[in-house]
Amino acid sequence: MTARLRGVLAPVLTPFDQRLEPDVELFVSHCRWLVDNNAGLAIFGTNSEAASISVGERLKLTDALLEAGIPAAKMMPGTGACALADAVELSSHASTHGAAGLLVLPPFFYKNVSDDGVFAYYAEIIERVGGGCAPIYLYHIPQISHVPITLGLIERLLKRYPEVIAGAKDSSGDWANTKALLDNFAAGGFDVFPASESFISAAMPLRAAGCISATVNLNPGGIHRLYEGWDSAEGMDLQATADAVRKVFQGGYMIPAMKHAVATYSANAQWRTVRPPLVELDEATAANFDEQLKAIAFDMPAYPRS
Amino acid sequence: MTARLRGVLAPVLTPFDQRLEPDVELFVSHCRWLVDNNAGLAIFGTNSEAASISVGERLKLTDALLEAGIPAAKMMPGTGACALADAVELSSHASTHGAAGLLVLPPFFYKNVSDDGVFAYYAEIIERVGGGCAPIYLYHIPQISHVPITLGLIERLLKRYPEVIAGAKDSSGDWANTKALLDNFAAGGFDVFPASESFISAAMPLRAAGCISATVNLNPGGIHRLYEGWDSAEGMDLQATADAVRKVFQGGYMIPAMKHAVATYSANAQWRTVRPPLVELDEATAANFDEQLKAIAFDMPAYPRS
Repeated sequence: MTARLRGVLAPVLTPFDQRLEPDVELFVSHCRWLVDNNAGLAIFGTNSEAASISVGERLKLTDALLEAGIPAAKMMPGTGACALADAVELSSHASTHGAAGLLVLPPFFYKNVSDDGVFAYYAEIIERVGGGCAPIYLYHIPQISHVPITLGLIERLLKRYPEVIAGAKDSSGDWANTKALLDNFAAGGFDVFPASESFISAAMPLRAAGCISATVNLNPGGIHRLYEGWDSAEGMDLQATADAVRKVFQGGYMIPAMKHAVATYSANAQWRTVRPPLVELDEATAANFDEQLKAIAFDMPAYPRS
Repeated sequence: MTARLRGVLAPVLTPFDQRLEPDVELFVSHCRWLVDNNAGLAIFGTNSEAASISVGERLKLTDALLEAGIPAAKMMPGTGACALADAVELSSHASTHGAAGLLVLPPFFYKNVSDDGVFAYYAEIIERVGGGCAPIYLYHIPQISHVPITLGLIERLLKRYPEVIAGAKDSSGDWANTKALLDNFAAGGFDVFPASESFISAAMPLRAAGCISATVNLNPGGIHRLYEGWDSAEGMDLQATADAVRKVFQGGYMIPAMKHAVATYSANAQWRTVRPPLVELDEATAANFDEQLKAIAFDMPAYPRS
């Protein structure tokens, strides 16, 4: 098995044009900048508006990255879907092209489903993709999916598919849950990624694998320095600096706010476009974000300008 | 405009084979029996496991019904999806083939979205499908979608698209909400379908259009008699008889329980198959359902037996 993808990953923002179509060129350029700044690419995550992007569109965007020479070894695409056939198609495509991992949401329409049912979903994906299945990371984001990845489910999946089940992303924001994942499974090689850089200093001593965090889209350098130096003399300063950026974006408008910020720093208004059901920031909210970013003297170094 | 589809509709159960593939022949035969028993076909609803069925699979199943001569005028397919492109493809296909209506879920992954965002989603579907768009029915099922169809949203959509927005299905189970929909919009020709036949006697005097109810899959005859006769001398008896069947299936296992019942009455065990994340009934639960149905002497008249 090749080396696991660890460190700092971005759930990559997806740029759309005025007709709401994915802007392939802008997507490739954003991914290249992220990789150049030591970030892995968790394309098609929650912050990518992945649920709003069809299977065909996701395959096309992935192919564009590969054709542009972005290494598949840096990619952990989101391949979970409500329909098994979609999850299998996305997972097979990514596995065939050598993706470092698959970040797999549980099916998220039906609520109050059993661990048996969620187990069956992951098992079917693994069996159908077959021998070449890329390492699977379970995606725990109960506040949105309403279908949790429980400790019991992880234990069953690890027992049945030890070669494929590689880790989890914990987007619950609940440190007790992240700690339980680390305490129970990290020593066995299960790679836990908290969904916020704010947990880096607490999680890394417990063998976390890094983080997959929305704000990596804007601050890959700062978060990578924290990942590398959390246990150095500057560790506390690095954590505080990263936290200050994170704090600006936390709250109810994360995706449109991040897109607004990238639009501002790249001088490309098109970046503000989101797909329904999300909406762009109104002017007052946008101005408030601008002020907060100015107050902490935030910048996106060497980001391509239009 | 052709006549609106009113009356009693089934959110049609989708049969799967042992490999979890849709069983096209069984699907056509179930739909034919429903139409023969005066039921309309709300194919690809929640009880159809629609979220677990890919766009390609849904198109194929729809085409099979059309090829089998099942009239499009009896069909109100579910065409909502998280990804706009999917919703547009499904809605265009159904409209082109003359479907009586489209039952359109809001995008259901993101939570706490604004009415502006949900409005934009419906507006984009209508604009993209264009002139021949079939009548749209808004699908309110907040306990599962977590994205409600608010009265304010309906008002805005009716104002902007009076020729396309035709009604709503209210699956909230909250009579106060169904009544508010009827009180506010029914007089203007907005067709409200409660999701349970238990509301027929209360909703019809307020100009409800009928009902779209899971149990129509098993009891189309009884529910159609209630729809026709709720204000007759036998109305109360018809309501009580239909309610007794409904009561058996209400609770946490509705889809696998209904599939179990169809399997039993048609002597075709394959009907029990569900897709993940749902699971089949365990033996004890199944036996309990059997007893309850026996206690009310329930049958599915003239249902095709294997």
